Order: sequence, then structure tokens, then C-alpha cells
Amino acid sequence: MLEPKQIKEASIRIKNFVKNTPIFHSSLLDEFLGGHEIHFKMDNFQKMGAFKIRGAMHTVLRLIENGKKPTSIVAYSSGNHAQGCSYTGKVLGIPTTIIMPSFTSPIKVQATRGYGANVILTETRMEAESLSEEYAAKGATLITPYSLDDVILGQGTACYESLEALGEVSAIFTSIGGGGLISGTYLAKELLCPSAKVFGVEPAAADDAKRSLESGVIFKWESSPETISDGARTLCVSPNTFEYIKKIDGIYTSTDEATIYWTQWLTHLLKATVEPTSAMCMQGVVEYLRSCTTKQKILVVISGGNVAASTHSKIWANNQLDVIPSIAT
Amino acid sequence: MLEPKQIKEASIRIKNFVKNTPIFHSSLLDEFLGGHEIHFKMDNFQKMGAFKIRGAMHTVLRLIENGKKPTSIVAYSSGNHAQGCSYTGKVLGIPTTIIMPSFTSPIKVQATRGYGANVILTETRMEAESLSEEYAAKGATLITPYSLDDVILGQGTACYESLEALGEVSAIFTSIGGGGLISGTYLAKELLCPSAKVFGVEPAAADDAKRSLESGVIFKWESSPETISDGARTLCVSPNTFEYIKKIDGIYTSTDEATIYWTQWLTHLLKATVEPTSAMCMQGVVEYLRSCTTKQKILVVISGGNVAASTHSKIWANNQLDVIPSIAT
Repeated sequence: MLEPKQIKEASIRIKNFVKNTPIFHSSLLDEFLGGHEIHFKMDNFQKMGAFKIRGAMHTVLRLIENGKKPTSIVAYSSGNHAQGCSYTGKVLGIPTTIIMPSFTSPIKVQATRGYGANVILTETRMEAESLSEEYAAKGATLITPYSLDDVILGQGTACYESLEALGEVSAIFTSIGGGGLISGTYLAKELLCPSAKVFGVEPAAADDAKRSLESGVIFKWESSPETISDGARTLCVSPNTFEYIKKIDGIYTSTDEATIYWTQWLTHLLKATVEPTSAMCMQGVVEYLRSCTTKQKILVVISGGNVAASTHSKIWANNQLDVIPSIAT
Repeated sequence: MLEPKQIKEASIRIKNFVKNTPIFHSSLLDEFLGGHEIHFKMDNFQKMGAFKIRGAMHTVLRLIENGKKPTSIVAYSSGNHAQGCSYTGKVLGIPTTIIMPSFTSPIKVQATRGYGANVILTETRMEAESLSEEYAAKGATLITPYSLDDVILGQGTACYESLEALGEVSAIFTSIGGGGLISGTYLAKELLCPSAKVFGVEPAAADDAKRSLESGVIFKWESSPETISDGARTLCVSPNTFEYIKKIDGIYTSTDEATIYWTQWLTHLLKATVEPTSAMCMQGVVEYLRSCTTKQKILVVISGGNVAASTHSKIWANNQLDVIPSIAT
């Protein structure tokens, strides 16, 4: 396992290349949740709209530092990791090929191309993975979305910056896709606030990390599970992220209905575009708070804000957000 | 008319009570618009989610400064001004009654009550106006939404803060409802950047300021015009805001279709919840840029982010945002 102090080094390494995004909170939300403090790390305002730039940029900067600047980059991704790699390649002047499953939202494809990458679409995620390995065999540097140590360290800088700004917190919530974000988050809190609990949140229909944790063996979907939280449609966590996931304090799940509810409310309360994959963390926060007997100071990592128009349509189709609910009980 | 230097005094007066909201820009948008710089003053992140707190707070602080602290406050408003007055009353410890037309979005009613005001709903805006005058006759201090000098000065602080941060700009765009925001904006730019042009934008279906400007006489709707830009459903500008409107450089209009288009794009590019009333400014920006032969540095005041769920549903019903358009020509 990585050492927590390496997160600080990663933060120094990338700080001129990524934004130290702001931390928001909503006094209305705090009040409705019973007087706890909920702080949101707004990485939806990150360059390219998501935390993924952190891991991709950190990986390539580390290679350059070690005298191994890639001649080309390849990555497979259904979205934000693709944009993170594409943006990294553009900023550092390295030709980049991104292989994406064809269900990727068109706006993410367009943005990935907009940052200069060559984009190839494949039918399934598994085909994307195997094609990217072919590119790597021919000399391209493959940046996988969550299993590389340098990706994990980069992703952890979001939590590191948050704890530097907020001081101690009682609990931290992030979504779990492949596990890179929560692994880095675990390391960051071990460095700056070891007493903080760390919780992951998964879509109820894509709860492979929870199943893996319960059985002790990594559970893998045969095909990408269906959920509005498109950033969490990964087939499984990786062996190394699973090691960090075993150390966190628990995994909550959120139905798509609950996720849509929280996406609506965060859109309204934070005045921000928040991916369902991020908003679903609130379902975990509320379930956790119901079990608490003391006032909590919570950090929620808002991982991104790249939302397809079709997803916006689904979020607002039922038009629920008409009165502020009582969610304290 | 007010003197431009009074805007600076207003800014000092309110600065401990309102946020100096951030200025955002989108490099993708700048590129798609042909290399101009477009800067957005994000008053959707203002306390209570809109610029209206500025004018309301400034008006009451000025009264207190002059030894005339109100014993109670009354206001009529279909939305953000109501929340501005309610929040002002709460912060300054003054009982507040808000009279709202019943078409007001439920979430704005709820938020207004949430800040502690007594809320009364009436059938029409005109009934709301006359009932508020009854309260005023009984001793309450009536804060009208746009015609008071101190409201105009407060609203102008958004532009004042923007120009302090950005330096010189070539043109400034704000929406026009009753005209308070654009009047204060005109004063702010006269103080800090007299060479800047100022443009207003109205919904095509609620273009009373444009009609007034063309005829030289204030045009008044018989009832609130229908448009998705609910912050611009005012019946007419006031005699004093009309004097400032005569001095600006022009008024553009936006159809609801164009407004929805720009609301979608700003949601995506700025990762922010933006009222259609604010987003419609982009229609004016694009029309203006088409007439420009040199690179422009533009300021757009994003006036608020309080959007009802039913409005979100309308914005995303047609699911347009699938590829980034070429909007340079």
C-alpha cells in the first residue's frame, strides 16, 4: 500500500496544473438535516469538469519527473477519465488516443475530442479495454482509470485540499466506481485527519464493491450495470483499490430514485451542476446521520459535473422539487 | 439621477452582508465564440441565490444609517426580491411581510418563508402591489423591487465588484425586468469603465423596455407576460430606471427557445444552475459579437440561480444538448 505522506507530494506535483476547487455549503441543507455541517468539495468546477484530471495529470507528471515522458498516451473510459487524459495530453503536448464504449454520452465524446484526443468508439467496455491494451503493446503509455498507484495518489488530492481547508471532519463520503477516488481519499484522511470515518456510496444496481466487501472476493459484472450514476458503471474494483476499500468504514447504496432526488436538491441548494454519481453520496450521508447522536462535520466529494442532456431530462422528468422536505428523520 | 461614485459607497455599505461572488469563464465557450473573452459574474451563488439581496440590504442599511430603522418591512415580488427582503429582515432583525402573486414558483415561496417572512399570496401582481401599499400606509417600510434609488445602488454593486476584479471590459450585458439591475450597472461602469457599452436583454414576449425605448414612453403590460424568464415578467420599467435605460447602448431580445438553448449550455459549460432570466443574456452577446470586428472582453451578470423544478423540466424536455454547436457565425 501507498504511504499517506505520498498524497502531500502528489498535491505539490499537480498544483500548477489543476484547480484547488472551492468548498461549498448550504445553510438551508444543514438546517434541514438537523444542524450538522455538510461541506462539499466542488470538483465539478475542476478543469474538464471532474476530479479525473487529478489522477491522469499526476501519473504523467510523475513519468516525466522520472525521465520517462510518454511518446503517446492511450486510455479507455466511458467519460471523465477520457477527458482527464485528453486534457493532460493537450497540456503536456503528448498525442493521446481515447477508446470509449459507444454508450458514452455524446457530450463527453465531443469534449474529449475538443481537448485534442483521437477518439475511437467500441461496442462494449470490455472491447475498449482490450483495444487499449493493443495500443499499449505498440508503445503507448496506458493510463488505466483507477488501478495505478499514481492515479490513486492524484485522486486523493481532492480530499487532501479539502482537509487542508476545513481542518478536522468527522466523516467523508465519496462515490465508488473503480475505487480510485475512495482509495486516495482514505490515504489523504490518514495523513491529515486519521480519526475521520470514510464511507463509499454505490448505486443500488451497481453495488459490486459492497458485494466484494461482504464476500471478501472481488465481484465483477458481466456487462456494465444500468444506472443513472454513469460514473459508477465500472465492472469491478481493482485488486489494489480493493485493499483500501477493505479499510474504510462502510458502503451505502442509493437507488436511482434517491439519486435523482438528491441531484435535484443539490442542483437547487448549491446552484451547481452535479453528476448523479456525486449526488448519490447524500443518500449515504442521510443514512449515516440518522445513526449519529452527536453533531457531525461531513465532507462530501462532488466528483464531477458533466451531465448529458438525456440525463438532465431524466432527472427533471418527474418535476418533484416543489417544497423543501423534512429529511432530518 | 444618482452619481456614479455612490455605487462605491453602496459597495462599502453592504460588503459585510453580501458575498463578493466569483467570476467564471469557460475556455470552450470563448473558443466557440471565436476567441472573445466572456466573463460571468456568478450572482447565482449570492446569498439566497440572486443579486436581489444587494438592493434590499442596501436600502435597509441606508435607513438604519440615517436613524430610520424600519419597525417592519413589506414587499411584493414574484420571487427573488421577496427572498432578498426576507433574508434582509432576518439578518437585521426586522419583521417582514412578503406579498406574492400566486403564480410564483413554490420553491421561491418556500425559501421566502424559510428566511422567516410572513408570506401572503394574491391572484395577480397588481393585487400584490396594492395590498403592499395598504401595509405601507399602516407604517411598514415598503421596499419596491427596482424603483428606489437605494435599490438601484445596491444592484449596481454586482457590476462594481466585477469591474474591480476584471479591469476594463468592452461591453456588459444584464437582463431587464424592472430595470434596477441595468440602472445600477450603468452607474457602476460610468465610475470604473466609462468606455464600456451596456446592453440589456429582454424576453421577446416581454420586451416592454425595448418598446418603451423605441417610443419614448413607458410601455406597460396589462398582465404579466408569459415567458420562461420569470424574473423578467414585470409589467413595466419605472420612470427613474427608464432614465438610465435611455442611456444604455441597446436592448436585445431572446425567444424562449433561444433562452432554453443558452440555459442548457451555461448549465453545462459553467457547471452552474443559472436562471433562464440570466442565461438569455447570451442571445444578446452572440448577436452583438456578430457585429464586432475586434476581440471583445464581455461581462455578463448572472443574476440568479433559483429555478423551479417545473422550469428545469421545460428546459430539458427537448434534450437538445448533444453536441457543441458552432456559434461563431
